Amino acid sequence: MSKLLSPKEMRLRFRENKDVISTSGLCDGYLQANMIILPAEYAFEFLLFCHRNPIPCPIVDVIEQGEGSPSIADADIRTDIPKYRIYKNGELVDEVLDIKAYWRDDFVTFLLGCSFTFEKALNEAGISLLHQEMNKVVPMYQTNIKCRNAGRFHGSMVVSMRAIKKDLVEQVIAITEKFPHAHGGPVHIGDPSKIGINDLSMPDYGEFTPFSTEEMVPVFWACGVTPQYVGLQVKPSIMITHAPGYMLITDRKED
Amino acid sequence: MSKLLSPKEMRLRFRENKDVISTSGLCDGYLQANMIILPAEYAFEFLLFCHRNPIPCPIVDVIEQGEGSPSIADADIRTDIPKYRIYKNGELVDEVLDIKAYWRDDFVTFLLGCSFTFEKALNEAGISLLHQEMNKVVPMYQTNIKCRNAGRFHGSMVVSMRAIKKDLVEQVIAITEKFPHAHGGPVHIGDPSKIGINDLSMPDYGEFTPFSTEEMVPVFWACGVTPQYVGLQVKPSIMITHAPGYMLITDRKED
Repeated sequence: MSKLLSPKEMRLRFRENKDVISTSGLCDGYLQANMIILPAEYAFEFLLFCHRNPIPCPIVDVIEQGEGSPSIADADIRTDIPKYRIYKNGELVDEVLDIKAYWRDDFVTFLLGCSFTFEKALNEAGISLLHQEMNKVVPMYQTNIKCRNAGRFHGSMVVSMRAIKKDLVEQVIAITEKFPHAHGGPVHIGDPSKIGINDLSMPDYGEFTPFSTEEMVPVFWACGVTPQYVGLQVKPSIMITHAPGYMLITDRKED
Repeated sequence: MSKLLSPKEMRLRFRENKDVISTSGLCDGYLQANMIILPAEYAFEFLLFCHRNPIPCPIVDVIEQGEGSPSIADADIRTDIPKYRIYKNGELVDEVLDIKAYWRDDFVTFLLGCSFTFEKALNEAGISLLHQEMNKVVPMYQTNIKCRNAGRFHGSMVVSMRAIKKDLVEQVIAITEKFPHAHGGPVHIGDPSKIGINDLSMPDYGEFTPFSTEEMVPVFWACGVTPQYVGLQVKPSIMITHAPGYMLITDRKED
C-alpha cells in the first residue's frame, strides 16, 4: 500500500514512525537523497570536498545552518527520514528514528544524489540487476582511486559494483551517463585489482552475489558512501547520516 | 611582444610590475579567471552562493585558507595578477599592484570563469564583437533576475550585453553553450526591459556602443561581476578582487 503514497504522505508516516522501512522502491519517480549533517565549523571544507569530487558527491541541496527544511522537499529533515545514524568522533554511537534530541542550531545539512535514480532507469530499459533480484544491498568497496582533498577531508573513493551482461555494457554506460547528479557513468569496468579491490566476494559494505565471469563483467560506479566514509576519517565531534537504504524521499521528479 | 609570452612568463612580469596591463588578448588559448578573496568566516556562504548560481559564478578553483597558489596555475595569487582592488565594508579603498601588505592567513581565494573564453570562441567562428572593434569594455547591467540566496549573500544577476547580427544569433547560442565554465549560453535575448534594464545606453559598468536594431539584437549573458556585486552588498570587513580586465592568467588551456 505504501507504494501508492506521495512523498509527502510517506514522509509523514516516517515522521510519526508508522513505517520504519527502507525507501528502496518507494514513491516511484521521485528523487531520493543521501543525507549528511555536520556542524558549521566543517561546512566550508565539506562543501568544497563535494565541489571537488562531484561524481561520488553530487550535491542536490544544502540546508543552511540551523534550518530544518530543504528546498527540494516540503520536509522536516529532523523527523522525515525513516532511520538515522549518529556518529561521534568517527564512531557510530546511536541509531534513531528522529534526531530531535541531537539537533543543534549550528548544523548544516547536505543532500546528495543516489544510485537508486540510475538503477530505476536501467530497470526501465529492461536491464535487471543481481542485487535487486536477490533482494540484497548492492556490494560496495573501498578503492585506491584518490579523491581531491579539501581541508581536513581526504580519502579514497568508495564504489558500488553491478555485474552486467557483456553485450549490455555499452547500453548501461549510455544510460547512467545521463544522470550526473546520481554518480553518472561508471568509474571503472572490468578488473577490480586495477582500482585496489583484491577480492570482489568480500565487499566493505553491502552483499556480494556470485555471477558468471563468462557472461558478465563487473561495472563500478562512484558511491554516495564516499562522503560518509571520508567524513568519518575527520572524526567530527558529531556527524549524522541517514541509515543505509533509509533515504530522504524528495518532492523532485527524477527526470 | 608580450603576446608571445607563456602564462608563467607573463605572470612573472606582473609579479615584478614590469607590465601593468589588461590581460585581454594575452596568452592566447589559456583560461583567464576572475578572482575574489574573502576571510574564512564568509567562505562557506560564498561557496554555497556560487554553487547555487553556477551560471554567473562558475568556480574554476578555490585556494584554501592561508594558501597562495591555485591548482590551475603555478602562480602566487598575491603578486601575479597585474592589478588588485581592496574593498573594506563594501567600499573601494585601494587599488594596488600586489596584495602582500593586505594578506592574512584566514583568506580564502575563489577563481571564477570569465567571458573572455567564449568571446575568443566567437571570434574564431568569424563573429566580431562591437566592444572589441571599438576597443571598449563590454557593457554590463544590473538586472531583476534574482540569484538564489546563500546565507548573507543575496542579490540580482549582473549581465553583459553583446549586440549580435540577427542571422548569427542561433550560432552564437550554440557556441557559448559549449562553455558552462564561462557563463554558458545567453540568459536573455531581445527586450532589455524584460530583465529590468531600462536604458541600454546607460550600462552600470563598462561602455555602450550604439548598434542598428534593424540588423542586430541585444544578447545578454550572466556576468562574473555578479559575485563581486553580491559580495559587496554583504559589506565584508575586507574583500579583494582583480581590477576589471586585469585577470589571473592560468596554465589551463581553454579547451
